[in-house]
This record gives sequence, structure tokens and C-alpha cells, in this order.
Amino acid sequence: MSILIKNGRIVTAAEDYIADIYIEGEQIVAIGQNLSLKADQEIDATGKLVFPGGIDPHVHLDMPFMGTYSSDDYSTGTLAALHGGTTSVIDFILQTQGKSLRHALEEWQGRSKGNAYGDYSFHMAVTDFNENTKLEIREMVEEGITSFKTFMAYKGALMIDDGQMVDLMQEVKRQGGMVTVHATNGDMIDKLIAKHKSEGKLSPLYHYLSQPEVTEAEASGRFSDMAHYTNVPAYIVHMTCEGALNAVRRATMRNQQVFVETCIQYLILDASLYENDFEGAKWVMSPPLRQPKDQEALWAGLNQGLIQVVGTDHCPFKWEQKLMGKDDFSKIPNGHPAIEHRIELLYSEGVNKGKITLNKFVEVSSTNAAKLFGMYPKKGCIAIGSDADLVIFDPNKQHQLSVNTHHMNVDYSGYEGWEVTGKCETVLLRGQIAIDKGETKINKGYGQFVKRNKVNGII
Amino acid sequence: MSILIKNGRIVTAAEDYIADIYIEGEQIVAIGQNLSLKADQEIDATGKLVFPGGIDPHVHLDMPFMGTYSSDDYSTGTLAALHGGTTSVIDFILQTQGKSLRHALEEWQGRSKGNAYGDYSFHMAVTDFNENTKLEIREMVEEGITSFKTFMAYKGALMIDDGQMVDLMQEVKRQGGMVTVHATNGDMIDKLIAKHKSEGKLSPLYHYLSQPEVTEAEASGRFSDMAHYTNVPAYIVHMTCEGALNAVRRATMRNQQVFVETCIQYLILDASLYENDFEGAKWVMSPPLRQPKDQEALWAGLNQGLIQVVGTDHCPFKWEQKLMGKDDFSKIPNGHPAIEHRIELLYSEGVNKGKITLNKFVEVSSTNAAKLFGMYPKKGCIAIGSDADLVIFDPNKQHQLSVNTHHMNVDYSGYEGWEVTGKCETVLLRGQIAIDKGETKINKGYGQFVKRNKVNGII
Amino acid sequence: MSILIKNGRIVTAAEDYIADIYIEGEQIVAIGQNLSLKADQEIDATGKLVFPGGIDPHVHLDMPFMGTYSSDDYSTGTLAALHGGTTSVIDFILQTQGKSLRHALEEWQGRSKGNAYGDYSFHMAVTDFNENTKLEIREMVEEGITSFKTFMAYKGALMIDDGQMVDLMQEVKRQGGMVTVHATNGDMIDKLIAKHKSEGKLSPLYHYLSQPEVTEAEASGRFSDMAHYTNVPAYIVHMTCEGALNAVRRATMRNQQVFVETCIQYLILDASLYENDFEGAKWVMSPPLRQPKDQEALWAGLNQGLIQVVGTDHCPFKWEQKLMGKDDFSKIPNGHPAIEHRIELLYSEGVNKGKITLNKFVEVSSTNAAKLFGMYPKKGCIAIGSDADLVIFDPNKQHQLSVNTHHMNVDYSGYEGWEVTGKCETVLLRGQIAIDKGETKINKGYGQFVKRNKVNGII
Amino acid sequence: MSILIKNGRIVTAAEDYIADIYIEGEQIVAIGQNLSLKADQEIDATGKLVFPGGIDPHVHLDMPFMGTYSSDDYSTGTLAALHGGTTSVIDFILQTQGKSLRHALEEWQGRSKGNAYGDYSFHMAVTDFNENTKLEIREMVEEGITSFKTFMAYKGALMIDDGQMVDLMQEVKRQGGMVTVHATNGDMIDKLIAKHKSEGKLSPLYHYLSQPEVTEAEASGRFSDMAHYTNVPAYIVHMTCEGALNAVRRATMRNQQVFVETCIQYLILDASLYENDFEGAKWVMSPPLRQPKDQEALWAGLNQGLIQVVGTDHCPFKWEQKLMGKDDFSKIPNGHPAIEHRIELLYSEGVNKGKITLNKFVEVSSTNAAKLFGMYPKKGCIAIGSDADLVIFDPNKQHQLSVNTHHMNVDYSGYEGWEVTGKCETVLLRGQIAIDKGETKINKGYGQFVKRNKVNGII
Repeated sequence: MSILIKNGRIVTAAEDYIADIYIEGEQIVAIGQNLSLKADQEIDATGKLVFPGGIDPHVHLDMPFMGTYSSDDYSTGTLAALHGGTTSVIDFILQTQGKSLRHALEEWQGRSKGNAYGDYSFHMAVTDFNENTKLEIREMVEEGITSFKTFMAYKGALMIDDGQMVDLMQEVKRQGGMVTVHATNGDMIDKLIAKHKSEGKLSPLYHYLSQPEVTEAEASGRFSDMAHYTNVPAYIVHMTCEGALNAVRRATMRNQQVFVETCIQYLILDASLYENDFEGAKWVMSPPLRQPKDQEALWAGLNQGLIQVVGTDHCPFKWEQKLMGKDDFSKIPNGHPAIEHRIELLYSEGVNKGKITLNKFVEVSSTNAAKLFGMYPKKGCIAIGSDADLVIFDPNKQHQLSVNTHHMNVDYSGYEGWEVTGKCETVLLRGQIAIDKGETKINKGYGQFVKRNKVNGII
Repeated sequence: MSILIKNGRIVTAAEDYIADIYIEGEQIVAIGQNLSLKADQEIDATGKLVFPGGIDPHVHLDMPFMGTYSSDDYSTGTLAALHGGTTSVIDFILQTQGKSLRHALEEWQGRSKGNAYGDYSFHMAVTDFNENTKLEIREMVEEGITSFKTFMAYKGALMIDDGQMVDLMQEVKRQGGMVTVHATNGDMIDKLIAKHKSEGKLSPLYHYLSQPEVTEAEASGRFSDMAHYTNVPAYIVHMTCEGALNAVRRATMRNQQVFVETCIQYLILDASLYENDFEGAKWVMSPPLRQPKDQEALWAGLNQGLIQVVGTDHCPFKWEQKLMGKDDFSKIPNGHPAIEHRIELLYSEGVNKGKITLNKFVEVSSTNAAKLFGMYPKKGCIAIGSDADLVIFDPNKQHQLSVNTHHMNVDYSGYEGWEVTGKCETVLLRGQIAIDKGETKINKGYGQFVKRNKVNGII
Repeated sequence: MSILIKNGRIVTAAEDYIADIYIEGEQIVAIGQNLSLKADQEIDATGKLVFPGGIDPHVHLDMPFMGTYSSDDYSTGTLAALHGGTTSVIDFILQTQGKSLRHALEEWQGRSKGNAYGDYSFHMAVTDFNENTKLEIREMVEEGITSFKTFMAYKGALMIDDGQMVDLMQEVKRQGGMVTVHATNGDMIDKLIAKHKSEGKLSPLYHYLSQPEVTEAEASGRFSDMAHYTNVPAYIVHMTCEGALNAVRRATMRNQQVFVETCIQYLILDASLYENDFEGAKWVMSPPLRQPKDQEALWAGLNQGLIQVVGTDHCPFKWEQKLMGKDDFSKIPNGHPAIEHRIELLYSEGVNKGKITLNKFVEVSSTNAAKLFGMYPKKGCIAIGSDADLVIFDPNKQHQLSVNTHHMNVDYSGYEGWEVTGKCETVLLRGQIAIDKGETKINKGYGQFVKRNKVNGII
Repeated sequence: MSILIKNGRIVTAAEDYIADIYIEGEQIVAIGQNLSLKADQEIDATGKLVFPGGIDPHVHLDMPFMGTYSSDDYSTGTLAALHGGTTSVIDFILQTQGKSLRHALEEWQGRSKGNAYGDYSFHMAVTDFNENTKLEIREMVEEGITSFKTFMAYKGALMIDDGQMVDLMQEVKRQGGMVTVHATNGDMIDKLIAKHKSEGKLSPLYHYLSQPEVTEAEASGRFSDMAHYTNVPAYIVHMTCEGALNAVRRATMRNQQVFVETCIQYLILDASLYENDFEGAKWVMSPPLRQPKDQEALWAGLNQGLIQVVGTDHCPFKWEQKLMGKDDFSKIPNGHPAIEHRIELLYSEGVNKGKITLNKFVEVSSTNAAKLFGMYPKKGCIAIGSDADLVIFDPNKQHQLSVNTHHMNVDYSGYEGWEVTGKCETVLLRGQIAIDKGETKINKGYGQFVKRNKVNGII
């Protein structure tokens, strides 16, 4: 099977040119002007952008939570991702405290296997680091799971303490992996939640007020300190605020590099959304949305090279699930649906509005995630021999986001009515047209697990 | 005329893959596995790296100085550059105080025209900014000279004061250009030079001691402050030290981005070279070489994305010229020969020693300069339709640098006996083989002036 | 002649107690409860505060300016100071460029001698530092003038360049003096003034807009850098803003201490006063008033120990003189009248409102200036053998500031109608009652020149 | 009973003069030249310094530890303190987890009552903050215990988590107290200790290596963040290093003031003492001694006003007790004997060597502690009506410190053979000569508990 994409404007993290792309099987085989190769199928990309399929390194699909699950499973989630130009995702396996990493891996494999439309990989969230777990780090790396997520919050469920963190970092360093972190001060947050509840402050606004900027800035600095001490490749997920970014900037002064991910919502939404009573539950996530000054800092951080990745922390819950917290913000399932909109929103709000360049757009939505997490050059670039994961994008197409049109399995939109310029028209995954003008062209199970390589902390 | 480069490992700032490259005329036309295209000439690049021709945005060729000239002219300088894998350079036009920018441009055009082997462009050094000069900024941008160099040192010859700087910045911002700067505190340095001379301290070591780190750190911070106030795209040339880098890091905290260039010598040489009497004259340049802690900060700065470019500040003088300062360090012509060695040294000391990745190597030696200075995507990338400026590089070839083998017009080497792993074997410029296994294959005059585009301060 | 002050609440920078003070001749001789000593005169201070006479280290009396003079001379100025509880002032001698320090000293001696009511000393403003001036530094120190003022602004009149600054610093360090500075970037300011004028923006508001925070922050950092390089005791006068204070805070990280003075107006007035057309001329001073966030930073700086001194930069001009700039803000004589109000305003706005303690109030209005400028322990404290410079202060007396009641020779008030709690009731200078309930009890000429000691940069 | 001290050089935090001091009963009643008052006893202080009795706000007397106690009890400890010029100490009550603050208070009262020679007060260490404990904060403040110590280390014994910390801060703020902290990251340290032990690294050197600078710098920053969030008066005990000091300096940039105590040993000893095998056990304390660069930072911090207090963390253990850790550094009782040497060492190493002024010496050894902890103006100053706690100090007397001459109940010295210039000759406590030329003149039980006042975070 071969495909010839004609005459598109090809954009990578470093290039920008007009050419044809010839695909054979799963890979890109040739790129050129007026390629005279015969293909089984031709796509005219004149006037379109062609860029690498997006990689969203922060999603939660079919995640067990309080007796229920996040509402997108590997099927609906990766399909929605594909509709939005994201061809690969990295999901989080959550170790159960008291059980092994292997146990958790098997559980996640069970839920994911054969169900995905798009390609996927796993981070391993280490929630109970001890001598047994330490021995499993190497095993996980051998399985192609080279990034280890930690939580500085959610004591008793997910959190490890700073001693475990240092110990884990040293082992992960030894095995060629990376440590990633949810960097907020869980103890402070737990206390503020308890305080607000005891005062009868129960609406979603208090979710926001229980996680003030300092809780994230402090933890980001502390994590950076520990990463500096252990010299492990380190990555902070879903950074939201100026204070946290400044903690990373200070770390640069000791010649350290801490990698940073933000998420699309933190770049374009702000905390004023929490002001309208329970409506705000749609955006109850942790960390919460912040202030306009934080958005500015994040956009600047992208251009400064301090933020490498824009993800989503996609973790959808239906309205019925959100209602679990109707009378108590602390019971609202955390997370919002975004996996489908990341690429189009980043293009529309970032590139179109002159905040970032096209190259930077590709770099932060795809290439850097591939490099940082050991999927490069298979993923994240348009290159001969790389997977033909491609988005053919109409940069001028205007449309509105809506629950009525999105493909995520959730009954509201966090972006209802949002005007977007630019649309993913055709999406290829490993040489197959997966999505074409809104229609799905592949079957469930086409998506494969991506085994990832070791990393060394420079990209 | 067509060329087919077979089976090379193609490396750009974002990609890394094995493929063939097909060139027709001056541009790259196709890239692919086993391209079946017929070419006038084939080059087997098996086992070789193929990367974009280097861009050195900081050279001084045929530069008038104290009645003489820097010893490489456009002919010898660009030829040496080509031997070392650098296919384009940006030279500096120096306005004479009291005369127009146009006058200077014509003078430099006169010296360069028809003499270059490699492609070249010009920065315009504005040394006398006034109401007349202000009117010329737009003209220069129209000529394709979109970057304006300033000096915070050399009062009475090159320096403009902070009022002129702000004024210039506002005009350059208006016209779509960039302001670059030699950021050292000239008044402090002049005083320290005078002091050392009055104390009979006349050896090259005192050149170093007359330009302490603070003179560069201070000026880099001051320039960043003015750039922030005026919001102009801003770039600091030849940064050498931790203090200056920290000034830029502090600027990031107000969401500012100041672009930074370092030079290959600051990454790998240090001030201990000034200790051996007049021998040190070989490395008398401004700013001077610094300390090992500064080298560490610069390597970190590259990976942190704070330093975008590695140049050379190539400004060679023969030993006879250097001897002008035999009895007085302040009379030693400033500069050292490096244009030929930048790529190989950066590869050997950076990539080979695991300090930077191959992608980063291409990014800082070529791509970023092209983007920052408005030459992209014509230059700086390997892409369909881009100029076929390519280096075919043997990553395993070991050799020694020496005056006996280098092509620069200078009778000593600043790197005599330096062991290098990796060699530029074949170099193409706009589709022509310019250098092949040490032999020159093009004629003087092949090099063209590159008219550059406007820039907007994000890349 | 002896005086016994009974039962006052005595407050110094370190103590706070109720006792009697016995004065004989010019000095304090005894302090105690129920002192049984007989005195020529007794003052009942029950319910009053007794603190050291204020020292204002930043005043301009009878200062030549554009063919006229600041409107308070040594007579009216020091008398008004005494009414406001300030018993000593330090005025600025301004060297004329091209002439000697000695020449300037004699000129200032001529104007001051025999005219002062209060004690006074001089800073020497070095506006033309060269080999001749360098030789005079030692002479000035021997004259008791141990602090040397520099200007980083007012090019062509007062400014020295950074080379001269470093040279001066090294000589002043050698001679046991201190370098003080007006730290704003004069070149930037001159250009902004010219720009505003060329645009027809001529009202006092543009005085403010011509001196943005960055001009002061930058220069404060630059001065700190040079002071660090030369290791000279260093002091920044009239600091107004957060940016400048942060520059000093950064300097602390390299174990440096730069002393800082703010002025009463910067703590309590803000730039909104420039909005009412020419009325704003009353507060045209350099640096200008700033924003509320800067006031907060300054109050914090006092408590943090980063700001040691609160002065006034008293430099009054009558309305007629201010009118010189009616059509051009750059012609408005800079300065405002405050010498009389500093102590009462600092008490009322600082101590009464809980922003600083009583001890801190004394420390920053008197003691630190005495220590920093070599007048301690003669001045600045309540101690046996120290000059009996004392303020008997009614902490509860409420009154309004007004041109109708002030003693400064200026026909408007910068604080018209300002409500103040606390009044200087009786003021003693060297054992004499100088002011008592608003009446002057000493004659012109009572004030003496204070010869100051060397300093070493720690207090 | 009355005492007249004749002709001493009286030094306070703000004054420096020669005079007589007249004491009646427990207080100072008069100060003056040639006081003609008759006293029961006269002391000739000609050529001597007279300064306020030292206050050591960080001591551990008779502290229960692993079934034994720190080797100085209230009797030997306060007597040794008096010999060394320290007239008041503040000891730490340690709440037992699971029990009330009241319970701990009573236990400490039981051990101290009637046993002290010198005056003393208590900090309350809150090790188990919960709803019950919260209610006791107010009670403790009413008892005159207004400072609440917290531990960020020693999990399971003393540590509270960040949630408890924030909660405690809010309550202490409400009640007019101050929160103090042992700021090191206990979890990191515990893990490093375990790691070193598992590797068979058991000597005292590994005590040092288990508490790297980052563990203190991080925790100091985190504590400052929480104090900023809650706006409580906050104080970090026994700060040792540049990193921690820089954390506090950064906090100043948001207009915050965090008070800082260092201890005499951190100013003058360094970690090289850990290199000689078990000998290093003498200096096993937490945090450990640091590097010369940290000493420089601490001395600078004193002059910069960033460090307000020099204490000791006196916590002596006999050699026999230290030997508990002979085969395992983690079993060495932490602490070293210094209560007797603080004043003399600070004078000899600080004032005599020109690092701090005499005024600063008094400020940091006595006055600031009195102010910060609510004992001022009863203690910490030489003022009419203040307690006559005085040291008559011979500034020229040279002597050696030694176990043979010290009065602390410990069988070695941490300063054996240290040459000191300056000696506490006569020490008065509340109007009584306590020590005179080495002889004790008061009885056990003379020392009283000092009930302290509320504080508000400015001094």
C-alpha cells in the first residue's frame, strides 16, 4: 500500500517547505518536488499544511477512579485524539500502593490491548517506592516504559515523600529513565481543602482557592532541587503558573535543565471560569486554571525554550460523574476533556495570533515529546523512514468546537462555541489514512503500543 | 546539473534519518530511500552524516583596522569557511562615525563583490546614530540588511550611548529588524586598560584582566533592560560568561527573550592561555577567554535553549600584525582565526563528548542563525526547495588542526595540534560541490550576497 | 548652662524607656530615673517621646541653578529643619566641571558660613573626575568630607562615566570614604525627554514618563556591580522603586552590602499627582514619584534592613521658579520642599500606622545616617557625651501641614492639608533649646559645620 | 542594694559612650558622667566594655534523649552561660506526639524550676498539631510562651507536615505569636542516612554527607513560602549555609521578612572537622558544619541585616554519650557545647577581626533576640528601668578555651585551645553580680522564668 501526498506545505520543528510525500507501508519513503512515483492513493494537499502527527504525552484513558472510570477509554479516547490530529498518546499506569509495578502494568495492558485506534505508550506512576519497586524500575525500562511519574500530592493514595523521591531518582538515573512529577504541595492543599470544607465553602471556586500558586511554585522548586541533587533527567507535568516557571528559571542558574510541560487549557483558559457556581466543575482539574499573568508567562516560556511540551492532561468525566461533587468540590472528579482540541487550539490561538511560530508549534505538540520520551525518530518528525504519522491541515477552515461535534465520550465541552481557525482534515497513522474529513477510516485495535527507548536528559 | 547523495545519515535540527538527497540546480528537490532518480553525479554517503551547511553569523573579513586589514579577505575567509563546513557567513559593516550607513555599505560591497567563494551577508554596525542615520534604517532593511549591530564599548570609535541605543531600538523595531550588541562596559574597560598601562602591566594577560566578567555581565543586563523597554528583537553576540548568561536568565522572568550567541572558543578554551607571556596574543580578543565555570555555563545554556547560536567572531591577524602590541597589550589587534574550525570543533567537543545532541549541533551551528537573521528556509535546513548547502561529514575521521593544514590566511593556529574526531569531507553550496576531500571545486566569486528578510523576534 | 528633661519616653534605635535626661553645655551628661541634679532649666516631658535629633543626609540649600538658587538658604532651610525635628543636615557641594573640588568647597563654605541655624555637613559631588581631582580626595577626607556623590545622569553637567566611577571608587576606598550615587541612566532619560518634547508632550506628566523605573533599576544594578568590583563603601541616594531595590537585593547574594536611602515622599506620595496638568510641577523631582507597589517595596525594604536611611532630597523652588517650565517640563526646576516634614510624616505614616517600630523610626531618621557618614556617636544617638540634639515629641498632637504654617521659604506645600498625628514640640541642638512650641530660640549662625570621620562600610 | 559601675565604655546596639551606670535593686536607674550617687558597691570599669547581658535563644538543657539527657541541666547550663556573658536563655519544650502542650510545659517546668542560675524562657516545640493542640496555642501565649518551634525533619518524632505547618501558622498569627523552624528536608535526610548505612558508611563524616546544603536550602525556601502565604512572623533557627540564606533573600523580593538565626559555630567552624574519623562526633549536630563559602555568606548576612541573631543550639553530650554512635553516625547524639563561648568567640572572631561592629555584636547577641521574642525592653538593652543584666568585658584579655577551664558539664571542648581575645570579667543579672573574675556569686535558683510578650513581626 502506498500513498502520495501532493504539494503540501510541510512543516516540522525545523523545516518549512512545499513538496510531495511518498509513503510506502507504514513509513515515509520519499519527499520531493513533483515526485514521479506511482502510489495506490494520491491526496492533493495544495494549500494545506502537512505536519507530524501530534503526540500528547499526558492523558488518562479508562482510568479507575472512585469506583468508576474516566469516560474515554482507549477506543474513544484515541479516536478523538486522531480526529484532532494527535496520533500518539502516553497514558499513565498508576501503581496501587502495596502492589507491584508489574501488577499495574498488566492491569493497564488488559484495558488497553486491542482497544486503541491510535498509538499509545505508558508512563509508570510510582506511588509506593520501596526496595521491591526499586528492582522493577529496570524491568519497566526493558518493557519500553522509560518515564516514571511521581506525585507530590494525594497523600495516602499517590504521593511519595521526598526521601522516596530521591531514592527513585537515583535508581531511574541508573536505568536510563526520566522522572516526571505532579508538582504541588499536597499537604498544604489537603489542609486548605479541609479548611474550606469546615467553613462550608463547597463550590468549585474553592477547588481553585485550595491550590494557590505557591503550592505549585514551591513543589516545582523542591522537585528541581532534588533532580539537581540526583542529576536525573526530570520533567514537570502540567505546569500552570509564573511562580512554578520561575522556580525552573532559577534552576537554570546552576546549569540545570528541568523539562516542562504545560497543557493547552492553561495557555488559553483562566480561573474566572470558576466564578459561575457549579458550572465551574467542568474545569475542576489539578492544578486548577490560573490567571492571565500566568498565561503570559507560559506563552513566553514556550518561546524561551523553558517549556518543551504542550499536552492536555485529558481526563474526561461525564456530567453525571462531575455531579458527585455537587455539594462538595473535593468530590468532583478532577479532569477535563481536551485530547481532541489540543492541536487545533494551539494552532488557532498560538500560531494564528502570532504568539508562536509554525516550527515551534510542531516542536511543542509533537517533536519534543518524541525526543524526551524516547519515541524519536520513529515519531515526532517528517523524515524518511519515520512512521508516516501525518496531519493534513487546512489552515483557513473556520469552525466551532462543541459537544455536538466532538468525538470524546463526554456530554459537555469545556470549549463550547469556541471559534477555531484551522482544521485537521486528514490524519494518517503509520501509513494509513485514519481520519478523512471527519470520517474514521481505520478500525479499533489499529493502534499499537509504542515501546520507548532510554533517555539521557539532553534533546 | 544534478547530484544524488546516496544513503547518508541526514541530520537537521529536528530530524535524523538515512536517505538519499537529490539536488537539481541550486536546490534540494527530493529526499528518499533508494531514490531511483538519475543524476549527473552520485556521491556515496554511506556511514557519513549529511547536515545543513554551517552559518557563521559573526565574522570580520577584510576589516579595516589601524591602517591594515584582518588577514582573511572575502576570498580566503569564505574558502576556509567552506573547508570547515560553513557555507554562509554574516560579516559586519562598520559605519564610520560622521558618515552614512550607505557610505559604509558601498565600501563593504566594494571589497566583497566578486571575491567570495561562500555565500555571505552583512550586519550593519551603527556607530553614529542620529536623525540622518535613523532614516537609513528602513533603507538598509530594504537592502536585505535587517540586523543592526551596536557597541557598548570602544568609545569614540564604535560605541553609542544608551540614549542612542534606545532610539535605535525603537526605529529598528518599527522597521522589522533586530538589534545585536557587543555587550561590554567600554568605559570601565578603558579605565582598567589605562590603569594597567600606567602600572607598566603590558602583557596579554592584562588584556584579560582589563575585561573582568562584571564588564560583560553588567552590559548584558543593561542591554536586556533597554530591549525590554523598547520590545525590539535583541541578540547579544559572543557571550562568554556565567554572569552575562545569568543576566539573560533574569530577563526571562519578565517574559522577555534575548537571543544569545556564543563562540566556539569560549566553549573550549580558557584564560589560562594568557599566562604564557606574549604567546597569549593569539587569543587576544574581546571579550577575552574566561574560566572553566563559564564554559560549563555556556554548554548548559545551549541545552537550556538560552543560547541559540555558536559563531566564531573570526577576525584573524597574522603574527606580524599581532606583534604591533608586543610592548602594549592594548595595541594587539583583537581577534583570532576560527572560521574553519567551528563545525568540526563543536562536533568533536560537543556531540562526541555527549554534551549536546546531533540535532542541537545543527540547530546552533546553522538553523537558528538562519531563522534569527531572516535567511530561513533558504538556508539552515535540509528541505525540498531549500538551497542545497550541505556538509557530508565523516564522523569517525581523526585529524589534527594545524597552521600547516588550515586554509585561513594566518601564519599560526589558535588550535595547533588539537585532536579532532570528525571531518567535513564534501561540502556543497547551492548545488555545487565546493569542497571535496580537501580540494576546492568552485571558483572565487561563486559566493553570493544573501538578501535577508525582516524578523519578528520569535523563532 | 544645664537642662533637665524630666520623665520623657526616651527612644533610640535600640532602647525605649522612661527617664530624665540631664544636659550640661552641649552634651548629655546623665540619664536616670528621678535624677536629683539641679539644672538651670527643666522641661517636663511626661507623656512625650524624646528621641535623637533627626539627620537629613540629603538636602540642597542655596543651590545654584540656572541663574537662580534653591529657595531655602542655610538660614531658612536649617531653621525649617529644626522646626521639623531635624537638627543636622548634609548638603551637597557640586564641583563645576573643569574646576577643582577645593574651588567648590570654598564656594559652598562662603554661602553657608555663619548662616545656619542647624548643624550641617557636606557631601562632595564629584562631577569631573580626573588626575587632579583624584589628588583632592584625600584632602577632602581630611576636611571631614568623607562621602563623594556621583551622578549617572545629567551628561555634560554632573555625570561621570563608568570609567571615572571605577577610578573614583578605587581612590575613595583608599582614602576611607564612601561613594554615593544618583543612580539613573541619564542617557536613556535624555533621549526620552527629547522624544517627548519632539512629540509636543510638555506637561509634568512627561517628566515622570521620561524616567521609567528601568532607568533607575538598571543604574542601581550597574552601580552595585562597580561597587562590588572595587569593594568601596557604597550608598544609593533617593531610591524610589521596587526594581532598584531588587537590584540591591540581588547584590546581597554575592555577599555585598550596598546602602540605600529613600526619601519620605517616595514612601507616601505616588505618581497620580502628575496627572493634574501643571499642578504636578510641585512634585517634579528626579527620580519622580512612583507607584503604590513601589511604596510597598520601600516600606518592606526599611524593615528588611535593606534601606538604612530616610532623607528628603529637599530642594525647594518657589512657584515662580517652577513656572520656568510652564511650557516645557524639562525646564521645571527639579525638587520639592520636605525638610521640615520628614520626621513628622515618617512618624505619622510609619509608626502610627504600624508599618515600622519606634526604634526603626529613630534608626532610619537619625542613627544610621550618623553611622554611615562618620558623625556617630557625636550625632544620632542619646548617649552620655553625645551632642544633646533632641526632639521632645508629642505623639498625640494632631495638626495639618500647610504653606500657611510651614517655615520653609517656598510659597506652596507639597503636603497641603495633610493630616499628621505627632508634633515636634521642643527641639534641642547641642544643649540649646532651638525650637519651643513653634518659636525659634536660637540665632542664625548657631549651626556649625560637622567635620566627619572616615568610614569602612560596616555599621 | 545598689551598684555603681564607673567609667565603662557602654555599648548597646545603637550607642557607644563612656559613662557610669547606677543600679538599684534589679534595674538600671541612672547613667551619666561622674555620677555622684552613692552605691553599696562600686566597680571600676575603666578600659572595659559594658554591654547588655547576652541572650541565647537556642539552647537545650536537660533535654530527654534516648533514655538519657543533654548533659547540662538548668543549673550547670545557665551557670556556664553566665560565665560566658549570657544572662538569659530560651530553651525548647518538646511536645510528645500524642500528648498536650500543657503536659510538656509541666514536664519542663518540673525540671527547670528552682534550678537555674540565669534567667530563662521557653519556646514551645509543636510536634503534633491537631485540633486539640490548636486550642492550646492561645493558652501558651498567655503563659508567656509566644514562639512555636516546628521541625521539618525527624518524621515520626518531631516533624509536622506542611499542612499542619500552614494550619499552625494561621493559629499562631491569630494569637500574636511567632513560628520558628528547624528547616531541613527530613525525608531526604532520612533516605540519605539509610543509604549511607546500607553502604557501610558509618563514620561522622556521613552525618555531614547525609545533610547536604540542598536539604536546608529547600526547606528554608518552603518554610518562607508558607510563612508568606499565612503572613505569620517567622524565624528560621540555626541557619548554616549560603543556599538557605539565598532562599530568604529571594523572599525579600516579595516584600517579605523572614527572621534568621545562625549559631556561633557555623560562623567559625567548618566541615573539615568531620574528616578525622570519630573525633568528628564532637561536632555532630544538625544541620552540620558547612564550608568556608557558607561562613562568608553568614558574616555578610549579619551585616546585611538578613540574619538577626547569633545563638548556639547548645546541646551538650558527654563523650560517653557520643560513643553511642561509635559504630553508626546516626546514633551519635546531636549537639555540641557552646553556651559559654558564644559571646567571647563572636567578639574575638567578629569584632576584633573587623567583620562586624561593636553595635552589631550587641544587636545580634542580645538586643534582637529580646525584641523578636517579646523580652524587650526588659532584656536586651542598657536603659533606665531595664533589668541590670550587664557584662563588664575586658577587650584585651587573651585566653584559651579548654575543657580544663570551661564550666559546661561536658568532658571535652569543641574549641580546645582556641585563642580568644576578650573576656567576660564581671557579669550582672538583675542587679546582682553573678560572676566576678571567674567566681560565681549567686546561688542556684536565682534564675527566673521570663514571661514573654506577643510579637508582631517587625522590630
